[in-house]
Amino acid sequence: MAAGSVAGVKEGQGPMCRWFDFVSADDTFGQETWEQAESKMLKTAINIAIENSGFTDRDVDLIISGDLLNQLMASSFMARDLKLPFLGVYGACSAMTESLLLAAALTDGGYFNTAVNSASSHFSTAERQFRNPLEHGNQKPPYAQSTVVGAGAMVVSGKASGGGVRVAEALVGRVIDASVKDPNQMGPAMAPAAVDTIITYFNESGRNPDDFDLILTGDLGFTGREIALDMLKGLGVASGWPEGKFQDCGAMIYNKEPGLEGGGSGCGCSASVLAGFVYKKMKAGEFKRILALSTGALLSTISSFQGESIPGIAHAVVLESEGGK
Amino acid sequence: MAAGSVAGVKEGQGPMCRWFDFVSADDTFGQETWEQAESKMLKTAINIAIENSGFTDRDVDLIISGDLLNQLMASSFMARDLKLPFLGVYGACSAMTESLLLAAALTDGGYFNTAVNSASSHFSTAERQFRNPLEHGNQKPPYAQSTVVGAGAMVVSGKASGGGVRVAEALVGRVIDASVKDPNQMGPAMAPAAVDTIITYFNESGRNPDDFDLILTGDLGFTGREIALDMLKGLGVASGWPEGKFQDCGAMIYNKEPGLEGGGSGCGCSASVLAGFVYKKMKAGEFKRILALSTGALLSTISSFQGESIPGIAHAVVLESEGGK
Repeated sequence: MAAGSVAGVKEGQGPMCRWFDFVSADDTFGQETWEQAESKMLKTAINIAIENSGFTDRDVDLIISGDLLNQLMASSFMARDLKLPFLGVYGACSAMTESLLLAAALTDGGYFNTAVNSASSHFSTAERQFRNPLEHGNQKPPYAQSTVVGAGAMVVSGKASGGGVRVAEALVGRVIDASVKDPNQMGPAMAPAAVDTIITYFNESGRNPDDFDLILTGDLGFTGREIALDMLKGLGVASGWPEGKFQDCGAMIYNKEPGLEGGGSGCGCSASVLAGFVYKKMKAGEFKRILALSTGALLSTISSFQGESIPGIAHAVVLESEGGK
Repeated sequence: MAAGSVAGVKEGQGPMCRWFDFVSADDTFGQETWEQAESKMLKTAINIAIENSGFTDRDVDLIISGDLLNQLMASSFMARDLKLPFLGVYGACSAMTESLLLAAALTDGGYFNTAVNSASSHFSTAERQFRNPLEHGNQKPPYAQSTVVGAGAMVVSGKASGGGVRVAEALVGRVIDASVKDPNQMGPAMAPAAVDTIITYFNESGRNPDDFDLILTGDLGFTGREIALDMLKGLGVASGWPEGKFQDCGAMIYNKEPGLEGGGSGCGCSASVLAGFVYKKMKAGEFKRILALSTGALLSTISSFQGESIPGIAHAVVLESEGGK
């Protein structure tokens, strides 16, 4: 497979900086609305991934994409421009592994030759859709995560598409509701779903954590990562794991600075880190096998208004490096 | 495969009445909010489909579902209750064939044993999300369609699941934008996408319309169906088709009465008609092969506010009857 990753300004100043294929000088991506900006960013990631794969647009026979916007506005308008067969997926911030596992199965099964999967999020579209108008300048509690401006795309093909990285296995997650109702606590709401998918994966696969260089969740953030790690230790799974075996893209993407203390969230968080840092480390052979789980909080403004708790979901993919050093 | 279809009050008074598995006595489905009502309706369709398949919940290893609500609220909360592996899809009203083609490929490819696909819509959730508060009682132009209260589900399995109906082929559609900006003209906005997928299907498959008992679109409504038929005739495809070969679920679901003159729309329109009328006619051997295309209008309130036109999409599945008379 090949990959392309794009990030915004704050993300480009963080620890993942050198792994992104493109960092925008400003978060508008030259567009007139934030939604157009997100769609442009997503399209850019896809185009980079296709270019990196050595294929052209005409070799791609399927795009699978998801984002956080109502009616997948970023993905729908990207697909309008690219004019390729398109399947939209929604799993909140789990879109990257949801779309990747589908792309892998549909190409492996021979239904498509070459598929692109992708996901995006943008602070300025998501925060105003889910929370408050940007102009309010509302403060959030320090544990709340910040929506990542980022996008990632991968090209998955039965044919050679460079990179020496492949999807070896995948597991579709179940919806788990931990009864969290505070929309500023997405990490804690999603952590039990991530743990459920990890436990189910190890039970079903017969593998154990020693088989993996890294177990990487999508956007639990600092608080959610701690909760998930505590749960895994309580279940006897994470005991004896070396420091650093269990990481979270949301806890990796930002420098710790005011407003970003909770870490990152959004489809674009795991999308840009998986298509950037993870893919490139695997391509170089530094990681041989990782378990990656994008994590989604399936709330809407309506469900929160109606007093519902926040259902979580996490889909797992196992990425293997075929070559490297 | 097996199927389950559920409809609301107005739909249950229409021409499709006898084909639904369950018609609710009122559109609340016994729930406190309209969103809960839609989720309950969707879950009911799934449970009926599973029951009709002869399988139990425990045999199902995947649910793929979509609806019109922001963040797929109906599907997400259904999946929370059913506790099964879940993939959410968004393709506006194309959700039924989008989820069905994925369920068919993922089971045919051996990645899952038994998958359920489903879709739903509800007048009282969709109309207030996309248009105006229900309490306004706004009048719509007579050509505008009415969102169907309905849900459909299918059980697709490599193993015998009854019914003698199978997904033989499928085609993922492209996003086509016909530059329609009026959200009361969804049928005209989607018609070119339906035509694009139909033409592409015939070109790629080598089949011709004579191979099909019925070519059935999802929810173009009366106006959209006329436009699509004119386009197909103009392209030389529909010339010589017998009356009735090209139908639309949205034009079939309601009696012609005030407020319903435009026909039906919504994911639940093609979902309930495909899982009801079509499935049962095929099971009985009255239809041997049909080409079904759920059609989606990928607009959002934000995209309309921003002056964007309405992108359309249509995904095709070919259903074949294996038995019957």
